Amino acid sequence: MDLNSKIRVIDGFPKEGISFKDITTLLQDKEALKYTIDKISEHLKDKNIDIVVGPEARGFLFGTPVAYAIGAGFVPVRKKGKLPGDTISVEYALEYGTDILEIHKDAIQPGQRVAIVDDLLATGGTIAAVAKLVEQVGGEVVSLDFVIELTELNGISKLENYDVLSLVKYDI
Amino acid sequence: MDLNSKIRVIDGFPKEGISFKDITTLLQDKEALKYTIDKISEHLKDKNIDIVVGPEARGFLFGTPVAYAIGAGFVPVRKKGKLPGDTISVEYALEYGTDILEIHKDAIQPGQRVAIVDDLLATGGTIAAVAKLVEQVGGEVVSLDFVIELTELNGISKLENYDVLSLVKYDI
Repeated sequence: MDLNSKIRVIDGFPKEGISFKDITTLLQDKEALKYTIDKISEHLKDKNIDIVVGPEARGFLFGTPVAYAIGAGFVPVRKKGKLPGDTISVEYALEYGTDILEIHKDAIQPGQRVAIVDDLLATGGTIAAVAKLVEQVGGEVVSLDFVIELTELNGISKLENYDVLSLVKYDI
Repeated sequence: MDLNSKIRVIDGFPKEGISFKDITTLLQDKEALKYTIDKISEHLKDKNIDIVVGPEARGFLFGTPVAYAIGAGFVPVRKKGKLPGDTISVEYALEYGTDILEIHKDAIQPGQRVAIVDDLLATGGTIAAVAKLVEQVGGEVVSLDFVIELTELNGISKLENYDVLSLVKYDI
């Protein structure tokens, strides 16, 4: 399937100069949604994944169906203050300023094998922060799986130690 | 499966006097996640659902795996300003003040059959707003499916015209 054609590009969102990759057109197309989840699941086959982790909010959209499809559990990583239990947090750099992500301390058992799933690999800052959280609670990050990669931003250079899959690559 | 035992109750979150139902403990348990998605999917069987709609952010966690499992598309309903394309919006009442939800205008084709999936039925205000958005873009709301219902809040009274499933009921 030409997954690229299922993604809508919207120039100027969320601000001037950005060419936003809109995955809602992919999600609403039942064949494209099934194809996307099946391709990621195929990449995770034989990796004995216990837990899929996805960051809020678009990581939830792909992470939970992948967890269901491969028979794993799902653990959300959320913005500060959203998770009700005891958490650990990580601060990471954005284009301007910083942000904080959290994971429940007891969400992952030491030694569990983890795949991190998100919609987009851009600079890699968010995913490197998510991987750090998973490792701090004792999980082993086995795979990183993205629907889209913006290759020009070279996020992959931050993720050298991991097995990375991205289904659609854009060079802008 | 005793799904009730998979949900963690945290008193005092997000504020004093609230007994928060934490579904992350259910999600991280692979058998409980599978059971939850399969039960909702079973309720939607023979309803010819084209699209599953889920509100941000916890509705994403259950809505997309259900869409995948039943072979439907998924359409997100998001807070104001998050969706990149042309949207319609609805304002609805919260305990204090109001909030705004949006859906892409072209997300649902007229006559498509829709199931709305969310983690929690409380007062029913959010879900009534989501149903209104779906109907305004031409969708037919066929089913409302929740993991948890807080029966004391009587949200079901706002949803009289719909086929409603909730898997776990709390009377507090």
